[in-house]
Amino acid sequence: MRTIEWLTETNEVQLIDQRQIPGCLEYLRIHNASEMADAIRSMAIRGAPALGVAGAFGVALEALAGRNLDETEFILKVNNAAQLLTASRPTAVNLAWGVKRITTILDDSFLDQEQKIEKIVQTARDMAEEDIATNLRMAEFGASLIDDGDTIITHCNTGSLAAVDWGTALGVIRYAHEHGKRIKLLVDETRPRFQGGRLTAWECQQYGIPFEVITDNMSGYFLRRGEVQKVFFGADRVTANGDVINKVGTYMLSLAAHTNHVPVYPVFPLSTLDVNIASGDLVPIEERDGEEVTGVSYAGESVFPAGVVVRNPAFDVTPHELITALVTDRGICYPPFSHNLPQFIYNSTSGR
Amino acid sequence: MRTIEWLTETNEVQLIDQRQIPGCLEYLRIHNASEMADAIRSMAIRGAPALGVAGAFGVALEALAGRNLDETEFILKVNNAAQLLTASRPTAVNLAWGVKRITTILDDSFLDQEQKIEKIVQTARDMAEEDIATNLRMAEFGASLIDDGDTIITHCNTGSLAAVDWGTALGVIRYAHEHGKRIKLLVDETRPRFQGGRLTAWECQQYGIPFEVITDNMSGYFLRRGEVQKVFFGADRVTANGDVINKVGTYMLSLAAHTNHVPVYPVFPLSTLDVNIASGDLVPIEERDGEEVTGVSYAGESVFPAGVVVRNPAFDVTPHELITALVTDRGICYPPFSHNLPQFIYNSTSGR
Repeated sequence: MRTIEWLTETNEVQLIDQRQIPGCLEYLRIHNASEMADAIRSMAIRGAPALGVAGAFGVALEALAGRNLDETEFILKVNNAAQLLTASRPTAVNLAWGVKRITTILDDSFLDQEQKIEKIVQTARDMAEEDIATNLRMAEFGASLIDDGDTIITHCNTGSLAAVDWGTALGVIRYAHEHGKRIKLLVDETRPRFQGGRLTAWECQQYGIPFEVITDNMSGYFLRRGEVQKVFFGADRVTANGDVINKVGTYMLSLAAHTNHVPVYPVFPLSTLDVNIASGDLVPIEERDGEEVTGVSYAGESVFPAGVVVRNPAFDVTPHELITALVTDRGICYPPFSHNLPQFIYNSTSGR
Repeated sequence: MRTIEWLTETNEVQLIDQRQIPGCLEYLRIHNASEMADAIRSMAIRGAPALGVAGAFGVALEALAGRNLDETEFILKVNNAAQLLTASRPTAVNLAWGVKRITTILDDSFLDQEQKIEKIVQTARDMAEEDIATNLRMAEFGASLIDDGDTIITHCNTGSLAAVDWGTALGVIRYAHEHGKRIKLLVDETRPRFQGGRLTAWECQQYGIPFEVITDNMSGYFLRRGEVQKVFFGADRVTANGDVINKVGTYMLSLAAHTNHVPVYPVFPLSTLDVNIASGDLVPIEERDGEEVTGVSYAGESVFPAGVVVRNPAFDVTPHELITALVTDRGICYPPFSHNLPQFIYNSTSGR
């Protein structure tokens, strides 16, 4: 099951419309950067690694469409597309990273326009394959931290649906499960958009992972009673000191876990790390539309009275003190993170 | 607006059907203990102080209906009703307290059956009036802790709808508001049943208290950013050491507040205190039907895939270390609670 895929015959991008899960499995066909930006903004596609590939594919579609333009217009068209895509989800560093990796090809003065287009498309497609390989490495590293019999809490959706395949935190859990470890997952629903209750629960059913769903505010109950051995989640951005910006609710979950001596493991590819930002509190947090909160019904009735004002921060900051170790595609990084993370980056950029 | 009321002309109990709020304001008429137990079980009526009066009224209805029975049958009928009512919400100590306060009248050997019935009904009605007076005392004590300009987080519903009038934590906030303090409330929705989003938001609109709604997992975000000055909530049970059993989510909220140096104030009448239980971890926690969690739709679609297994603890334990002070109808109790609470009980039982 590929969440996002380049269709070579038609030069379109096909992606699973995640707003329809778990009701039905429907695919969207994307033909240009504007449609891709809409898909990102409306969260038809989401999840850090998937967004990197989505950004790259969006630029590639636009480059292909600009084949017959003169050079100035071509560059302008592609750069406009890059800007539009990056702005469609400002907090997602992976999206910006995916877009930038493609647009740097424009600067290659050894290539003519046709060669640039070819390289752009090929690079975007390679990124999708790399994503799968990256996720499998994270899954294997992370699974080494899981013991037979563990009960694990996870937040939001970080599975195949968040990536091209496998995903981050849920990929770790799936890998452990598929390698015979008997585990149980507590899936928190992840308000406001219920990515846990909708997507993670659905993926667990596909993989046969034993799980129970809870509301976000119940994690503390189970952690305090000693019923949970590990907490795994993804990351939308990680700063130089190891602070993790992730889906709102991650902070309260991590705090309750840390307080009750339960290890906390964010799982992310190194591309999510932004060493240019010293700490999480320097990252602007996107506040999204209030309807994400109020668009909920209960027992058939609207929940909220008409006219309420809503706050809706999409992410929060989990300070590095609460984190046991960072699971990356280059291995597991232990504290002190500001000291140890640079070595991971060095290993990564030196190709090891 | 009375949440629960004895109608003298017809000897019925009238209560607001809270399952209909905020959609419409509908009243239920209750004629016997069995109907009252149903109303409690289905949460048509809820909230610790309201449940105490509901229990008393339920017994009183049954006593009146047993007027023509012989003494043995009368006692049996009333005691069966008492058992049924107490069992309809096993964790609610106020319910058991309200029921017991009425059934002890049966033991008064100076009264004949008719006098017992009269005293039972009068006592139950007095309890409703006492509840209002008690809540106003708590409101005044608690409001002294609120400063002009405070932003306050509250959890679940603890307003008039949780009591006969005023309520506990929301009564404090309403009192401060009505006495001219400029405050803002962050109302968390309180999954799974959304008592915050449905009931507290609705009450705030009635009183004109400025408020914004958030999901439960967002509290930590605002607490960590220093945007919140106080946290107030109610209590379903308080143990001898000051541990607070309250609606699930209270623990994670209190932990996030305490960690960020924001004061945490439970508000409750002393009848909620159970000095016979040493600590919160000894209190059995009710797990409720999973449909409370899954009976939710989002943007018109079911959230959870079919067949998921749900965990649904209704309450959690907030350990006393996280609590700044306990606001009661006899004043504000500061730590160490196991040392200071007995004095409050002494003052209370000695009628001071």
